[in-house]
Amino acid sequence: MEIITKKILLNTQGAPDLVNITDKIKDILDSSGLKQGSLTVFVVGSTAAITSFEYEPGLVKDMRELYDKLIPRGKQYAHDAAWGDANGFSHLRAALQGPSLTVPFDKGELLLGTWQQVVLADFDNRPRQREVVVQIIGE
Amino acid sequence: MEIITKKILLNTQGAPDLVNITDKIKDILDSSGLKQGSLTVFVVGSTAAITSFEYEPGLVKDMRELYDKLIPRGKQYAHDAAWGDANGFSHLRAALQGPSLTVPFDKGELLLGTWQQVVLADFDNRPRQREVVVQIIGE
Amino acid sequence: MEIITKKILLNTQGAPDLVNITDKIKDILDSSGLKQGSLTVFVVGSTAAITSFEYEPGLVKDMRELYDKLIPRGKQYAHDAAWGDANGFSHLRAALQGPSLTVPFDKGELLLGTWQQVVLADFDNRPRQREVVVQIIGE
Repeated sequence: MEIITKKILLNTQGAPDLVNITDKIKDILDSSGLKQGSLTVFVVGSTAAITSFEYEPGLVKDMRELYDKLIPRGKQYAHDAAWGDANGFSHLRAALQGPSLTVPFDKGELLLGTWQQVVLADFDNRPRQREVVVQIIGE
Repeated sequence: MEIITKKILLNTQGAPDLVNITDKIKDILDSSGLKQGSLTVFVVGSTAAITSFEYEPGLVKDMRELYDKLIPRGKQYAHDAAWGDANGFSHLRAALQGPSLTVPFDKGELLLGTWQQVVLADFDNRPRQREVVVQIIGE
Repeated sequence: MEIITKKILLNTQGAPDLVNITDKIKDILDSSGLKQGSLTVFVVGSTAAITSFEYEPGLVKDMRELYDKLIPRGKQYAHDAAWGDANGFSHLRAALQGPSLTVPFDKGELLLGTWQQVVLADFDNRPRQREVVVQIIGE
């Protein structure tokens, strides 16, 4: 069994920027040569999350509206009052969605559905350079 | 250390169908003979999720009402407008809840609480045959 | 490759008690001597969850208010009617947030951001003794 730890660097636009990272993850799995195991995607930082959905323009719009509804951007959060960076909503969205997703693979293929993509959700209110860790444990 | 990857097939009724899959998972762990490690449950597809709660009729009802409140079924979503399958709400619920859950085990037992069950939440608006991957990494 | 399974015991105050457990987790990783792999944090029980956010007083307040808004404490839930323990809201919050978080590590360090802490969210309506499993798979 082997462990491989790689990083993906991405420039994002914020509030939220929903980026389909499935192909980048598949490339890392392909390069590893591993056939069976689990792949964990983890975003470093407290204003972004990893989620999974059918990446098409309608759902990208729906997901943005869902986050706007559940955790509105316009509200004044205690975090903003203390820190003055006005991205309390970004932190809360990231905490609710979570920074980590584990996907099993077998015969060298991620066991995702055809319309099930892995998506980086950068909730910050400004462009960021993001670091996403892709870790494979397998054989 | 070993990796074992199994699939559970389930017929679900949709919108949402909350199915307690704990016993099926325990059976797979028992059959593996492995004593210590982690077990990942992953549902294939973009309109279902894996969650964990005390599986009793009151909470099943409460969970349904929670999803109805957070992401209503009746609303028109952009996904529906584009695709005409009217299950935008199913996709959004699945994305928020997430498709994957990792549970550690030790001495051959999942480290779940007594009232903590693993539940497949099928949010789709029609009956489906679902594939749930159970992957064990352990010794 | 090795698997190490440890437990953290914590006394919590409930409704919700948001406890920063990052240092305890780091201590377990340090003691393991392992350099590369994944660490899973899993809370036993159906009224608590594991999340991740910048642990500062403003966000702790914001997170409490978010949970109060999404899943109010005052509402009568079907679980409460059946069981009389009035913590239906605790179960629902735990199910939505989830009991498990997997964080990769490399060169002996968790790949968390500087302001990204691992937090036990105990949603129960009374003090509890909580058991958090920390499982490391690595080399």
